[in-house]
Amino acid sequence: MGSKRWRGFPLPILMSLMGENGMAKNITPRAQDFSQWYLDVIRVAGLADYAPVRGCMVVRPTGYSIWEVIQKHFDEGFKETGHVNAYFPLLIPHSFLEKEAQHVEGFAPECAVVTHAGGEELEEPLVVRPTSETVIGHMYSKWVQSWRDLPLLINQWCSVMRWEKRPRLFLRTSEFLWQEGHTAHATRDEAMEETLTMLEVYRRIMVEELALPVVAGEKSEGERFPGADNTFTCEAMMSDKKALQAGTSHFLGQNFAKAFEIAFQDQDGQVQFAWTTSWGVSTRLIGALIMTHADDDGLVLPPHVAPVKVALLPISTDEERLASDLEPKARELVTALEARLGRRSVALDTQYHMRPGDRFFSHLQKGVPLRLELGEREWQEGRVRAVRRDTGEKIDLPWDRLAEEVPAILEQIQQNLYQRALEFRLAHTHDVSSFDQFRSTLEEKGGFLRGYFAGTREDEKAIKEATGATVRCFPLEDQSTGTCFYTGKPGARRALFAKAY
Amino acid sequence: MGSKRWRGFPLPILMSLMGENGMAKNITPRAQDFSQWYLDVIRVAGLADYAPVRGCMVVRPTGYSIWEVIQKHFDEGFKETGHVNAYFPLLIPHSFLEKEAQHVEGFAPECAVVTHAGGEELEEPLVVRPTSETVIGHMYSKWVQSWRDLPLLINQWCSVMRWEKRPRLFLRTSEFLWQEGHTAHATRDEAMEETLTMLEVYRRIMVEELALPVVAGEKSEGERFPGADNTFTCEAMMSDKKALQAGTSHFLGQNFAKAFEIAFQDQDGQVQFAWTTSWGVSTRLIGALIMTHADDDGLVLPPHVAPVKVALLPISTDEERLASDLEPKARELVTALEARLGRRSVALDTQYHMRPGDRFFSHLQKGVPLRLELGEREWQEGRVRAVRRDTGEKIDLPWDRLAEEVPAILEQIQQNLYQRALEFRLAHTHDVSSFDQFRSTLEEKGGFLRGYFAGTREDEKAIKEATGATVRCFPLEDQSTGTCFYTGKPGARRALFAKAY
Repeated sequence: MGSKRWRGFPLPILMSLMGENGMAKNITPRAQDFSQWYLDVIRVAGLADYAPVRGCMVVRPTGYSIWEVIQKHFDEGFKETGHVNAYFPLLIPHSFLEKEAQHVEGFAPECAVVTHAGGEELEEPLVVRPTSETVIGHMYSKWVQSWRDLPLLINQWCSVMRWEKRPRLFLRTSEFLWQEGHTAHATRDEAMEETLTMLEVYRRIMVEELALPVVAGEKSEGERFPGADNTFTCEAMMSDKKALQAGTSHFLGQNFAKAFEIAFQDQDGQVQFAWTTSWGVSTRLIGALIMTHADDDGLVLPPHVAPVKVALLPISTDEERLASDLEPKARELVTALEARLGRRSVALDTQYHMRPGDRFFSHLQKGVPLRLELGEREWQEGRVRAVRRDTGEKIDLPWDRLAEEVPAILEQIQQNLYQRALEFRLAHTHDVSSFDQFRSTLEEKGGFLRGYFAGTREDEKAIKEATGATVRCFPLEDQSTGTCFYTGKPGARRALFAKAY
Repeated sequence: MGSKRWRGFPLPILMSLMGENGMAKNITPRAQDFSQWYLDVIRVAGLADYAPVRGCMVVRPTGYSIWEVIQKHFDEGFKETGHVNAYFPLLIPHSFLEKEAQHVEGFAPECAVVTHAGGEELEEPLVVRPTSETVIGHMYSKWVQSWRDLPLLINQWCSVMRWEKRPRLFLRTSEFLWQEGHTAHATRDEAMEETLTMLEVYRRIMVEELALPVVAGEKSEGERFPGADNTFTCEAMMSDKKALQAGTSHFLGQNFAKAFEIAFQDQDGQVQFAWTTSWGVSTRLIGALIMTHADDDGLVLPPHVAPVKVALLPISTDEERLASDLEPKARELVTALEARLGRRSVALDTQYHMRPGDRFFSHLQKGVPLRLELGEREWQEGRVRAVRRDTGEKIDLPWDRLAEEVPAILEQIQQNLYQRALEFRLAHTHDVSSFDQFRSTLEEKGGFLRGYFAGTREDEKAIKEATGATVRCFPLEDQSTGTCFYTGKPGARRALFAKAY
C-alpha cells in the first residue's frame, strides 16, 4: 500500500492535490469575473469536475467530504424531529407523473427516460426520478389504512435527475445529490405544522452550521413547487448580491393524496384523504457556501462544516530535525487536538517536497479554517503560529494551551463568517415603494429589494421580464402590510425581490 | 404534528406497524418452505416491499435503519484504512462499457438504457450504472499524471441497476444499494495488497459486527468479476445450508488502466499504466443477516447491527398507573440506558392499545435483541424482566443495575449468535475426495463440500450442470494441497463447493 496513507496524510488533501502537485493555482479575481472565479475556486479546491455525460458532475473527495458533514447536520435535525430514512426506487413509471397535472407539466420536460432494459424494449417508459412524490405517494397508499398509521415521516438521501441545458457545478447539474422528505398526516393543520417545522430545521442549520444568514419566507404563487398548495423557502444572498434558493418546504395539501389515493379511516370510522408535505436541500448548498464565504484565494469554510478544521505544518529544511523533533511533536499535538475536535479533523501536512508558501496555499485554497505552523523558531519557543483563514490574523499559541484555545478560535471564525455574511445581506437590502424606484435601485445597486407586493402571477411575470428580478419570498419575520409598490393595492404583504440563481 | 412523535415512540417501530396494527403475523415455518419463510420475515418486520417497477424494491424504514448501521461500520473501516468517499455520475455512455471486452460482455445484457432526455433523443444511449469501473477509470485518467497522485483510494455509496428476471428482495433486485471502492496504484504489489486489505476489512466487519462466520477466499477462474485478473470473496452459509457471496474484492491488474489510459510518470520519469482494484458489499447483507440469524418468530438481529437494541415496555391495564408511575420510570430507565448504548437505541413501547402479547410479538418480529418488561409486579420489586431474543431466556434486573448489566447481556447475545452460526457452518461442511462422494454428500447432506480441486473452467461448468454446486472459493486460511477429487491431478488447492444464492 502507498506509504502515504500510513503517514497520517489526510486523504481529502491528498485527493485535492491530484494532478495539481500542490502548486498555487491561478484564481480569476472575483471582481473581474464572478462566474469564472466561482469555477476557479471549485477547480483549485478540487471540489468537483464535469462528468463525461453532458450536464452531470463528479463530486470529488474534497467536495464530497463537505457534503458528508452537511448531511450529518441535516440528518440529525430530521431524526431529532421524529423522521426516519428509507429508500425508494430510482425508476418511476411515466404514467405516475401524469396523475398530478401540474407535476407532470413541471417535470416531464426535464426527465431522462429509460426505454430499454435487460436487452428488451420496455412496455412502458420509465423516468429516472426528478423527485419522488409520485412513487412515494403510490407506496404510502399501500401502507396507510388507519389513522394509527399516521403520521408517516420519511426522508430519503439520493440523487435525482433533471436534464439541464445550461449546467453549472453544484448550482444546476442534470444529476445532483439531495435529500427529499415526504410526510403524510391526518389533518391539514398537522401537515402545515410539519411544513413549517422543517423550514425552521433548514433555517436553523443553515444559520448555525453553514453560517448562511438565510431569510425564511413563503413563495409567491408563481414560484411554487409543481403540485404544491404552498411553498416555503430559505433564501440566501451570494457575494455578487444575487439570491440563491437554499432549501424549500412544500405544503402539498391533498393533491398527491387524491392522485395516489392515500386514504385512511379516521377515529370515527370515516375514510379521509391524507395531507402531505415534501421538503429538500441539495448539493446546491456547497455552491451557496462558496458564493457566500470564499474569496480570491479560494474556498473559505465555516468550521462547523469543514471536514478538516485545522492543518498542522511542521516546517524545516533540515530533514533530520523534521524526523526527530518537529514531526513527532506535530503528531502529539494532532492527537491532542483531535481529542477535542474529532477524528480526522486535523490534517498533518507532510508535503515536505513543496515550498512552505505552496503548502500554505494548498490549505488556503481548500478553505481550512485554521493553519498551524511549527517551524524552527516556534519549536525553540514551544509554540505554534496559528493563522486564521477568515481574517489572516496570526496568533502565537503555546503547545500546552493549544487544545483549549483552538476550539475557541474556531468558534470565533464561525461567528465572524456568519456576521460578515449577515452584514453584507443587510447592507445590500433596499426598500422600494414604487416600480420606478424598484427598477432604478435594482440597476444601480442590485441586491435584495424589499417592498409591499400584492401583484398577481401575471404581474410577477411582467416584473421578471422587465427587470430579471423575481419574488424570492414573503419573509415570515415581517408580517407588516402596506401599499403594493406595483399595483397600489392596500394591505399588501412585505416581499423580497432579487435576481436569482 | 402527530402527538405520537413527541411520545418517544420510536419511528422505526411505528413505521413497521403501518397497516399491520401490531397484530401477530403468520410466518410460514422455515422447515416447511424456506423461500416463503424468508419473504414472510421481511414482510412482518417491515424491512422491504416490491416497488411498482418490476424487480425493484423499496427499502422500508426498519430495513433502511439496519442498512445505516451496516454503512456506519463499513464506512469507518474504509476511512481507517485511508479511503475517502466521492460521487460519480449515475449515467454512463454505452461506449465506455465496450472499452473492456469481458466487462461489456458481462454487464451490457443487464443494463437499463436511457435513450431520451430533456425531451430529445440522445445521440448516444446512456446506461444506468451497473457498476462504475468504466466512468471512474475515465476520471482517474484525467486526475493521475504523476506517481505523487497515487494511490487513489476512493469509495462511493450509491445504488446500481442490473435488470433482474427473477427478483428476490435483498438478494436479487434490479436496483440495489451498495458501496463500490475503486483504487489505483503505482505497482502490482500495492494493488494486490489493497485487494487483500479490503477483503480483510470485509471479513472482520462481517464477523465482528454482523456475526456472520464467513470464509474468506479466492474465486475460481469461472467465478471472477468481468474484467478482473483475480477476485476474492467472503462466503457465508445460510440456514438452508446454501452459500451466499457476502462481499467481493477484485484485483483488476492493468485491464481498466489500459482501457481508460490511467497512466502516470514514475519517479524515474517513465510513463506507466496504473494497477487498479475494486470491491463492494450491498444490501444483500441484510438478506444474509435474515437467512443466518432469523427464526420462525421473525427477524433476529445481532446487537452490533440492531438500530433498536432494547425495547422497554411499561405494562398495565391501569392508565392512571401508566401515566403516573410506570411510564415516567420507564423514561428514566431509557435515558440511563441510552447514555450507555447510544441515542435512539432504546425504544419505549407505548402501544397501550395492543395486548401485551402482541406488543411482545411486534418486537420479536423485528428482531430487537432484548425486551424489558415493566409490569405491576416488576414495579413493586424495583426491577424489570429482561427477555433475550436469541434464547428466550428471562432475567430479572434491578433498576439500579440496568445500565451496567444490559450492555453485557447484549455482548453475550452478539457472541452467541456468532457461535451458533459458526457451529452450524462447521457442522454442515463435509470433506470429499471423489466426485461420487461429492454427488452423494451434496444430495444427502448438502452444505459446504470441502475438497482439493484443480479443475479447469470447463470442469467447473460440468460440475455445476451435474450437481448445481459451484466453487465458492479457495479458502485463504487453508493452504494445504492434495489430489484433485475431480481430475485426480496432484498438488490441487483446497476448495469449498456449494449450491449458492
